[in-house]
Amino acid sequence: MPLCVVGSVAFDSVGTPTEKRDNVLGGSAVFFSYAASFFTTVRLAGVVGEDWPTEHTQLLEARGIDTAGLQVVPDGKTFRWRGKYLPNMNDRETLDLQLNVLADFKPVLPESYRRSKFLFLANGSPLQQQKALDQCTGASLVVADTMDHYINTERDELLRLLNRIDGLVLNDSEAKLLTGDDNLVRAGFAVREMGPRFVVVKKGEHGAIFFSQHETYVLPAYPTPQVVDPTGAGDSFAGGMMGYLAEQGNFDPKTLKKALAYGTLMASFTVEDFSLDRLRNIQREDLDRRMEEYQQMLSF
Amino acid sequence: MPLCVVGSVAFDSVGTPTEKRDNVLGGSAVFFSYAASFFTTVRLAGVVGEDWPTEHTQLLEARGIDTAGLQVVPDGKTFRWRGKYLPNMNDRETLDLQLNVLADFKPVLPESYRRSKFLFLANGSPLQQQKALDQCTGASLVVADTMDHYINTERDELLRLLNRIDGLVLNDSEAKLLTGDDNLVRAGFAVREMGPRFVVVKKGEHGAIFFSQHETYVLPAYPTPQVVDPTGAGDSFAGGMMGYLAEQGNFDPKTLKKALAYGTLMASFTVEDFSLDRLRNIQREDLDRRMEEYQQMLSF
Repeated sequence: MPLCVVGSVAFDSVGTPTEKRDNVLGGSAVFFSYAASFFTTVRLAGVVGEDWPTEHTQLLEARGIDTAGLQVVPDGKTFRWRGKYLPNMNDRETLDLQLNVLADFKPVLPESYRRSKFLFLANGSPLQQQKALDQCTGASLVVADTMDHYINTERDELLRLLNRIDGLVLNDSEAKLLTGDDNLVRAGFAVREMGPRFVVVKKGEHGAIFFSQHETYVLPAYPTPQVVDPTGAGDSFAGGMMGYLAEQGNFDPKTLKKALAYGTLMASFTVEDFSLDRLRNIQREDLDRRMEEYQQMLSF
Repeated sequence: MPLCVVGSVAFDSVGTPTEKRDNVLGGSAVFFSYAASFFTTVRLAGVVGEDWPTEHTQLLEARGIDTAGLQVVPDGKTFRWRGKYLPNMNDRETLDLQLNVLADFKPVLPESYRRSKFLFLANGSPLQQQKALDQCTGASLVVADTMDHYINTERDELLRLLNRIDGLVLNDSEAKLLTGDDNLVRAGFAVREMGPRFVVVKKGEHGAIFFSQHETYVLPAYPTPQVVDPTGAGDSFAGGMMGYLAEQGNFDPKTLKKALAYGTLMASFTVEDFSLDRLRNIQREDLDRRMEEYQQMLSF
């Protein structure tokens, strides 16, 4: 089933302890779409400026990603992020952030997008996320992401959003910030109490925890020795998860767990190179081969 | 099969953000023995002072733990540790450390201990660990633990030890310190290159990673919402792991993985209360019930 995503499209400049890349393709909706495109048709809504090269659109379209909802602002500049990873490759510092056209982004979903049954509201202002949601009222599964910035500055809008969505995906530090609880398991329960039927807390190199009314489980990250650039890992995780759910056309507990596993593996590939470079070099078979290994790893 | 452990016996004084306990029963060999006693007969070797109350020995003996190797130093004082946990309940600060009788501890294993087929060298000076190993040459599985202090101050002795043991258990930060590699997966491989046939890297609330020549896998921690006191979690992990291996009488890859899972669950119980208080209130059935839940959690 088609999957709609609304989120950021960006140029990322990334420094790691050993390498750097400037102005590479990034943004939450881009990583999400590309990851999800291994499973299903994706409809991407976002905004870019005039500096956006056609090749990027072509790259996405070649994956069957619909870019009808990608607004191009004349004379505008695309959102830019510059950051640096610390030697542990888990913590990072934002060195520069230029919202540019993202600052005034008003999501307008093309008519064809509005009938999507699966909707992902990637990282963005909770107000913008709700405006996108208003246009896609027939979705049977709505999942959102959020981040520390919005928890700190738009808490009320975020709490409103939480009452309108089925699932929330967020980082461990964000779950602690949102709830004020330092125990991650209790924090996960508490986020669920705020509205969503399920919550996925991402723990970076340590995997993810899932919380629903009847289930709590942890899936570890796939142990890759080759961590080149963690940028986009969380968005790829969400893309793999939502992509698999949309492909299966349901989100019962069993399908959800397998979806989390696919998200985990998608993230493990993303971190193995800069930008989308690793995902561009794998096939669905590579993903499924790693899935077999992963399931083997967790059975005893 | 009987399992022999050599390590510290201590009085712990523990502060958490909400509670504190003074001079409670602790020490690596104590947590290890108690955890392992759910599975097999344990032979404990260690040292205490005259301040050691008979009740503690009785508590251990009531679990079938042989204390013939527990030396009592006349006029001596038992090793004492005082520490405080930070709000995340993962990081801690040592406020006071009195080695006392542990400073001059020379492990002397009773004759009956020396025929043990399973030997665990709990945290201690690598020189002391080797002296214990010298007395137990018929062991078919020797596993050791170590810590940052010995990595920093007795590196050469530690490297010698690593060439004489089958397995090493250590924390994530210690694996990074020992190898100088910030990627935990690469660090695990590198520790294995130093000698042991397998390495278990403990990640606290994030579980553990296993490394052998043909296998690398991660087992997540059991997600308990009730973390009261993490002291002894790592030693209980090792006790659960080695206890299960000794019970099964073998250490093939399949048994080793299940042993790691038991270690994980043992640690999850230990953190639910101070000292041995939680382990004292569970039965083997509770452990096996949690094992079923855990296996369920990891299957999809």
